[in-house]
Amino acid sequence: MPSDRYPTTSEIREVGPRDGLQDEQPIPVEARIRLIDALSATGLRAIEVGSFIRPDLVPAMAGTDRVLAGITRAPGVRYRALAPNMRGAELALQAGVDELELVVSVSDAHNRGNLNMSTDASVDQIGRIVAVASEGVVPVEVIVATAFGCVYQGTIPTADVVALARRLRDLGVATLSFADTIGSASPPMVSALIDALEDAGWQADQLALHFHNTRGAGPANIVVAAQRGVRRFDASIGGLGGCNFSPGATGNVATEDVVHLLDSLGATTGVDLDALIGVARDVETLIGRPLPGCLLRSSPWTGRPLLPDGP
Amino acid sequence: MPSDRYPTTSEIREVGPRDGLQDEQPIPVEARIRLIDALSATGLRAIEVGSFIRPDLVPAMAGTDRVLAGITRAPGVRYRALAPNMRGAELALQAGVDELELVVSVSDAHNRGNLNMSTDASVDQIGRIVAVASEGVVPVEVIVATAFGCVYQGTIPTADVVALARRLRDLGVATLSFADTIGSASPPMVSALIDALEDAGWQADQLALHFHNTRGAGPANIVVAAQRGVRRFDASIGGLGGCNFSPGATGNVATEDVVHLLDSLGATTGVDLDALIGVARDVETLIGRPLPGCLLRSSPWTGRPLLPDGP
Repeated sequence: MPSDRYPTTSEIREVGPRDGLQDEQPIPVEARIRLIDALSATGLRAIEVGSFIRPDLVPAMAGTDRVLAGITRAPGVRYRALAPNMRGAELALQAGVDELELVVSVSDAHNRGNLNMSTDASVDQIGRIVAVASEGVVPVEVIVATAFGCVYQGTIPTADVVALARRLRDLGVATLSFADTIGSASPPMVSALIDALEDAGWQADQLALHFHNTRGAGPANIVVAAQRGVRRFDASIGGLGGCNFSPGATGNVATEDVVHLLDSLGATTGVDLDALIGVARDVETLIGRPLPGCLLRSSPWTGRPLLPDGP
Repeated sequence: MPSDRYPTTSEIREVGPRDGLQDEQPIPVEARIRLIDALSATGLRAIEVGSFIRPDLVPAMAGTDRVLAGITRAPGVRYRALAPNMRGAELALQAGVDELELVVSVSDAHNRGNLNMSTDASVDQIGRIVAVASEGVVPVEVIVATAFGCVYQGTIPTADVVALARRLRDLGVATLSFADTIGSASPPMVSALIDALEDAGWQADQLALHFHNTRGAGPANIVVAAQRGVRRFDASIGGLGGCNFSPGATGNVATEDVVHLLDSLGATTGVDLDALIGVARDVETLIGRPLPGCLLRSSPWTGRPLLPDGP
C-alpha cells in the first residue's frame, strides 16, 4: 500500500515570464516588470524573469536586462534567468540575476535543434559558464531537457538522463531540474527517474521537476513525485506557454492549479492563491486570450460552503 | 516509499451521453444514438446512455427510451442509464437498460436540491427500486454524490460517506460509485475514503470513482486511487459536461486523457485511443465549441518520434 506521506512544504518556481511568454507576441518591458512584481507579491520565492538570448531568435525576450533593472526585488525572492550560451550568461550575470539557468537536452537531436550544438558541446560550455558564475558566487541550475521523451528521438532511456546528470554534477552544477519538454511524462516514468537518480546519489528533495500538461498528466506526475519527496516544481501562471510541436496544446502546468494541488497534499507552498488567480486573470487580459488553468474558471476549494444559503 | 503497483487492467465508464450532455442544449435523439454507437466501437465496455428524468426538468435527456431502442448494442458493452426515482427506474427497466444507476447525496441539502427529497427518503426509495430491479435481474449501481465536498455543506466527513455506503450495501446495492460532484477532491481525501471503505469491508477493486477536473486535480486523484487498487473510473468524452456551480468550469475528466493516463500506468483500458479522440472531435462539432480534453490539442504519446526526420 503506497504511503500518503508528502513533503510538508514545497516550492513553486514560476516560469511564466520566460517559458510562458517566450513564444507569445512580444509585450512591453514595462508590462513584464509589472507581471513579475505582481507575482513577487503572491509569496512565490523563485521567478524566472526572462532569458538572455538573441532578440532576433526570440523577440519576446528582448530587454530582459531592462526587466531585471526595473523590477522591485522582494526580500526572499530569487530572480532567475535563462542563458543559452556564454555570451548570454555574461549578460545575465551583469544584469544581476540571483540564479543562472542553463539548459542541455539529453537528446542530441533536440539539443542541436534548440541550441545549434551537440549535447557534448553544451556540456563543455556549461563547464566554462559554471566557472565564470562561481567567481561571482551566482548559483547555476541546469535544466535537463527532454528528460521524459523527445519529438526527434522518441523514448529517452532513463540511463541516458542519469548519465548526463552525473556529468553535470561533476562540473559543479548546484541544482538540476528535469524537464518534461513535450509533456510525455507518465507517473511510472517519473518514479523510474527518481529511483535512478536516488541510486546515483541524489536525494529527491534536491531535485526540481518541470512538467507540461500537454496530455493532461501534469498534476498526476507532480503528486507521484511529491510522494517520493520531490518538493520543487516549475509552473507557469495560468498555464501560459505552449508546446512548440503541438500548436494550441496545453503547455506548462498552471501555477495556481499546482499551488492548489500541493497545498491540498499538505506540501504547503506559502503562496496566496487568491492573489495568484488575480495575476492569472491579468495575464489573460495582457495576452488577449483565455489561459488553460482550471482555477481561472472555478474557485479554490476551502472546505467552506460555496452556497451557504442552501438550494 | 510508495509503491508503483497499479492494477493491470482498468475500466472506463463513459458518461458523456448523460452527465456530459444533460446540461447542453438538447441534440436530436439520432445524434445521441450515433454518438453512443461511435463510443461503443472504441472498446469502451460501459456507457451511460442517458437518464429517465422528467423532460421539463432536463430537456436534453428527453427520449432516452428512443436512444436505447435505436443504438446498436455491441457485444460486451453495458448500456446504463440514470433514474432519479421509481417512475424513472420503471421506464429505464422497460427500455432495457443493462444496468440501472441511482443517485443519492451524502449532503442532505444537496439531495434536496438535486432530487427534492431528503437523503433518508432517497435511501428508502433506493431500497424499493432495488427490489423491483432485482426481479428483472438488472444490476443497480448507486452513485454516492458529494462524496468529497458539497457546495451547500462544504467539507463532507468521510465517516458520513461510509455510513451512507453501509446503508446502501445493506439494501443489496450491487455497486457503489463515489462522485466528486463539484471537483473538490484531493489525493489525501481519496486515500482517506479508500482507507475508510476498506476498513468497512470493501475491496478497492469493487469501487468506482467519478472525478471532475474543476480544479485540475482529476488526473492526480485517479492515479492515487489506482495505486490503491481502484480500477473503475468514470470519464466523459472530451471532458464534456460542466459544473453547475461554476459556469464555464471544467467538468468531468476527459475520457481520452484518462485512457492515456491509465494505459501509461499499465492499467490497460483496452480502448482504441485514436478512435476515441476522433469521437471527441465529432462531439466538438456536434456541440459547436472546443472541449477541454488535452489530447484533443496534442496527440497520444507512443514513445515513437513525432518528428523522426530531426530538427
